[in-house]
Amino acid sequence: MAFRVGIVGASGYGGGELLRLALRHPQLEVAYATSNRFAGEKVRTVHPNLRGPAGDLTFHRHEDAHTKSVDAVFLCGPHGTSAPAITHHMKAAERVFDLSADFRLRDAGAYAKHYKGWQHPHPELLAQRAYGIAELHREEIKGARLVSGAGCIATTAILSLAPIRGLLQEGMPVVVDAKVGSSAAGAEASASTHHPERRDVVRPYAPTGHRHEAEILQETGLRAGLSCHAIELVRGILATSHVWVRPGTTEKDVWRAFRASYQDEPFVRVVKERSGLYRYPEPKLLAGTNEFHVGFELDEETNRLVVLGALDNLCKGTAGAAIQNFNVAFGLPETTGLSDLTGLHP
Amino acid sequence: MAFRVGIVGASGYGGGELLRLALRHPQLEVAYATSNRFAGEKVRTVHPNLRGPAGDLTFHRHEDAHTKSVDAVFLCGPHGTSAPAITHHMKAAERVFDLSADFRLRDAGAYAKHYKGWQHPHPELLAQRAYGIAELHREEIKGARLVSGAGCIATTAILSLAPIRGLLQEGMPVVVDAKVGSSAAGAEASASTHHPERRDVVRPYAPTGHRHEAEILQETGLRAGLSCHAIELVRGILATSHVWVRPGTTEKDVWRAFRASYQDEPFVRVVKERSGLYRYPEPKLLAGTNEFHVGFELDEETNRLVVLGALDNLCKGTAGAAIQNFNVAFGLPETTGLSDLTGLHP
Amino acid sequence: MAFRVGIVGASGYGGGELLRLALRHPQLEVAYATSNRFAGEKVRTVHPNLRGPAGDLTFHRHEDAHTKSVDAVFLCGPHGTSAPAITHHMKAAERVFDLSADFRLRDAGAYAKHYKGWQHPHPELLAQRAYGIAELHREEIKGARLVSGAGCIATTAILSLAPIRGLLQEGMPVVVDAKVGSSAAGAEASASTHHPERRDVVRPYAPTGHRHEAEILQETGLRAGLSCHAIELVRGILATSHVWVRPGTTEKDVWRAFRASYQDEPFVRVVKERSGLYRYPEPKLLAGTNEFHVGFELDEETNRLVVLGALDNLCKGTAGAAIQNFNVAFGLPETTGLSDLTGLHP
Amino acid sequence: MAFRVGIVGASGYGGGELLRLALRHPQLEVAYATSNRFAGEKVRTVHPNLRGPAGDLTFHRHEDAHTKSVDAVFLCGPHGTSAPAITHHMKAAERVFDLSADFRLRDAGAYAKHYKGWQHPHPELLAQRAYGIAELHREEIKGARLVSGAGCIATTAILSLAPIRGLLQEGMPVVVDAKVGSSAAGAEASASTHHPERRDVVRPYAPTGHRHEAEILQETGLRAGLSCHAIELVRGILATSHVWVRPGTTEKDVWRAFRASYQDEPFVRVVKERSGLYRYPEPKLLAGTNEFHVGFELDEETNRLVVLGALDNLCKGTAGAAIQNFNVAFGLPETTGLSDLTGLHP
Repeated sequence: MAFRVGIVGASGYGGGELLRLALRHPQLEVAYATSNRFAGEKVRTVHPNLRGPAGDLTFHRHEDAHTKSVDAVFLCGPHGTSAPAITHHMKAAERVFDLSADFRLRDAGAYAKHYKGWQHPHPELLAQRAYGIAELHREEIKGARLVSGAGCIATTAILSLAPIRGLLQEGMPVVVDAKVGSSAAGAEASASTHHPERRDVVRPYAPTGHRHEAEILQETGLRAGLSCHAIELVRGILATSHVWVRPGTTEKDVWRAFRASYQDEPFVRVVKERSGLYRYPEPKLLAGTNEFHVGFELDEETNRLVVLGALDNLCKGTAGAAIQNFNVAFGLPETTGLSDLTGLHP
Repeated sequence: MAFRVGIVGASGYGGGELLRLALRHPQLEVAYATSNRFAGEKVRTVHPNLRGPAGDLTFHRHEDAHTKSVDAVFLCGPHGTSAPAITHHMKAAERVFDLSADFRLRDAGAYAKHYKGWQHPHPELLAQRAYGIAELHREEIKGARLVSGAGCIATTAILSLAPIRGLLQEGMPVVVDAKVGSSAAGAEASASTHHPERRDVVRPYAPTGHRHEAEILQETGLRAGLSCHAIELVRGILATSHVWVRPGTTEKDVWRAFRASYQDEPFVRVVKERSGLYRYPEPKLLAGTNEFHVGFELDEETNRLVVLGALDNLCKGTAGAAIQNFNVAFGLPETTGLSDLTGLHP
Repeated sequence: MAFRVGIVGASGYGGGELLRLALRHPQLEVAYATSNRFAGEKVRTVHPNLRGPAGDLTFHRHEDAHTKSVDAVFLCGPHGTSAPAITHHMKAAERVFDLSADFRLRDAGAYAKHYKGWQHPHPELLAQRAYGIAELHREEIKGARLVSGAGCIATTAILSLAPIRGLLQEGMPVVVDAKVGSSAAGAEASASTHHPERRDVVRPYAPTGHRHEAEILQETGLRAGLSCHAIELVRGILATSHVWVRPGTTEKDVWRAFRASYQDEPFVRVVKERSGLYRYPEPKLLAGTNEFHVGFELDEETNRLVVLGALDNLCKGTAGAAIQNFNVAFGLPETTGLSDLTGLHP
Repeated sequence: MAFRVGIVGASGYGGGELLRLALRHPQLEVAYATSNRFAGEKVRTVHPNLRGPAGDLTFHRHEDAHTKSVDAVFLCGPHGTSAPAITHHMKAAERVFDLSADFRLRDAGAYAKHYKGWQHPHPELLAQRAYGIAELHREEIKGARLVSGAGCIATTAILSLAPIRGLLQEGMPVVVDAKVGSSAAGAEASASTHHPERRDVVRPYAPTGHRHEAEILQETGLRAGLSCHAIELVRGILATSHVWVRPGTTEKDVWRAFRASYQDEPFVRVVKERSGLYRYPEPKLLAGTNEFHVGFELDEETNRLVVLGALDNLCKGTAGAAIQNFNVAFGLPETTGLSDLTGLHP
């Protein structure tokens, strides 16, 4: 049995990745993909990697979306486009998966604070929606009609930190230093993404006050200081979390904490090798996959624990997680359509 | 029903890619993978992208290979390692797929000329072996006990040129100007591949006298001048072929020639778009796939035809082609295990 | 004694490079730099490498340019902006150096053909202007009031081909296959230069019919077929020229031809090494320098001569050449301000 | 008047950069350059950017070094090669500038701890040598016969942190998260620097226990936790320092601290812009220069101060600093030979 899905805002990078995954998912059927900018053009013109799988699939305008009935709709537009139309989408489909930031925060006030005074048009939905990190909210996702995606950097930090909260020393800070590829800034060209300017930079952006701090706080209870750096990479995030554990905490304790959280997780792997070139998580190996890798190193002298988390911002950080959530929500095996996305080497 | 296969020389990049593909192939079972250098180590240590699919698979020494019976063996070592051991391998398995250069040339004398005076130890096998470009030699591959892989640059050039031979002007030259990623030089580190030296170069190597000229001549009858350039890329080849067609030849004639050759080919696509950012073949989009893309532009004023061919040197150029040949040889649908290797964008 | 110069259109990459060179030139004084887009902003905001040398230099509007008297003006705007204003500039300054395409072709008809039917507003100036490759037109540049820059790819091809014209076989073609960094497309962001799209491509553009063919023809008499490829690089061009020499031509003959042309040239070097990692010209080593390097390989069996030419498109290909021409025109030692621009390794 | 200098271990990247700078320095004369590995070969073969300036300069063996008398010698070999030969060098030259790690730490015991139990052969010299960050030790360098270079990552961290020590909150940690280009690992090829493996990684190395922690402690009194990441870059380091200032500290206070330390420093710039693409320090702009740039962002809510420091590891981080120290030591203007090393854009 196939589920019919619609993809709104499908010309961006999140939408394109969702299309890639949806078109290879054995139980999904893409009923429509919308893009006002590219309406009437073939999907394969915008996402040329889909020349084969997308066939003649053509972008519709957003307003033409729901002429076809669907089981689920994925919203892939930028922040501020999902919330105003949400009731419309929720009427049209049994479940809505929003990849934007519009429903990530449970607290409408947090939006006002972190999103430049944005007044959320549907605060009543914030309590009902599920936050779409399946590793933390599997049960809620099953029951939710609206599932929000998580921020890609936030996902990396949250999955790095959640398991070890219990080990942390009171009163000591949490710092997340993230290195981020250029695709995380989206498909829209600008002066800052112009290749000669963007190439080879190690460009700090939002060294303080990054919006994803709000998600990390919400999900882990930790008031992390997040500093992001745009580096020479297209897909991928490595987040280095610097935290302090209670004196006496050993490497074994940290292992145990990660194992307890992740041993049954199909998409999470603890990477900490004694040999080989890739001893810690490496985003390069995860491009195109739905995996999250986590590793760590403990300085027993100072109790500083360095946690290294890696993922592909467009896949596990966005579209792959949405498909994972879809699988959970519709009762499919969680890895359906996501299981043989092996990365490349080299 | 699963076929059992052995992979000899599996720690290099061709071997690693073959492992990736074999482990996801629904009808293949990897009986063993050998590497003298890494014998006793886990495959996943060398090919960390296979941490999931390779499980605890461990490298054996070459000499321990045939203790297990297999239907086929893939030889992935460098030039000069396959031929000396070939009878051994052909006794052990019904079919042998050699990815090295040892059986590419039909003429033993051509080896002496192009491979520094190398005396082929088994010239008698050269006439029987099939040359492993399925698009050109499908029937031979079906019947062959030994299938040679083709050179990755040679494959790009041959698939670019074979369909249009009939259009070419007598007496005019054929030039193939290839741009090649660093993985084509193999997994062995050297001064020339040291990252600070290799990065950002546009390094001509073998501007004249490249070995793959012999394969191009053998397969197309064209005495092409091949010039290769190592560029800033890991996976991928773009070959720009400059040829001259007979006066009066039109774009339509060229289209027709490519279509006649490739319309039913599952892994070949003619790419020549009027819009979008990717109007010609682009190796970046083909990383990890078994596709060959070809496009062209005709200068009707001078009759110069520029043919652009692109592929992933490790996949369609090496290991993917080997799996394709395996499928052909064993009577499986040709796309088995290779069909949903969709590339990434961006 | 210092010469006062104005720089019009100084916010682009050619203008920025010219500023870098002008500010370090011991006998130049930058009287003004204009940019309508950035008028009123500090030069160092747009060209942050000039934070030190540019001090508080601020962009003026174009129309405010000639309120200050100057000895020379450099026009760095895009094609179509220099010609309409040329008489204005020639009144204001003793000499004008135009870096755009507007005065490159001697024949107004060639503009109509190669520049989309563009009608040149000042065809009468085309015969008088000098074409700014000093290695070929030193004497004309000395006497000219208007010196045109050469196209960066054209410069690479022309300096590669001019010395060996006499060796070429009648009736055989000339192909120039160029690999080009992203800065050659200018400072204006667009979809095609968006980092995630532009990175790692080997993107053919204008495989046939490239405008610079007209310059190559004008300067060498050779009807070259030029095919350009945007590769993963910011600064730099490598042009691979494929030509056929008369039977019997030896490597020594080619050496002799290049030596005869270039032995006294301060900015040209023939690179053809027997050892080391950099045996042929390498644009990576020339970033920021005014050097042109040329090397070659001759296939004596087929008489194919492969000439490899490399330069930095913004420096020797644009702004460095303009300073070199300035030095020639004003009777300064030709290397003034350009002599210690040593490249980096690695 | 020219000073004659010798360069020992000149075939590595530090040595090559020193040669580049020495050959352009108006008062330096390179008496010899040594390399056992490349003895007898031309310097320009190993450092092809120096084809012009190095002329026919040829590597000598180390033992042939002091046949020529010199005023100073620069030791550019790896850790462990300088100390055993130090008395030999100090006899031969008035001053010795050691770029290795052998004399960085004042405390011989710190070597035993951080350098795998290394027993320093000349502990008596550690108290006399100057630590070669001129911004902090100008007077000592003037008087010292032996000047040690500082680690490149350590330099970045130390210059980032030294000025703001007085603002820090007691009991709160200091974290330095460094992003480092591949040239910092030296000129020796290895599996981990093989281009296909090294490219595009965000590879953590020494997430805890990095040797440079000892230098940071020695120079700033701060027990910083240093975590380094090899990123896709050749030259350049960006160090992000996360520290906590006393409640009430304002942005103005931080500005004041940096200004107090650096306002008269010729090679240091505080970069914190309100507009433009490069608002914080950017190593890309500093390639080939002797500049250190520092910027910051203060989260007044949490008192986290993020300090961003950038430099070129081979120049300001190694060889440029050595020349700067040379200038100081010999009483030359400190910027001699280093003043017009303007970076490139783009």
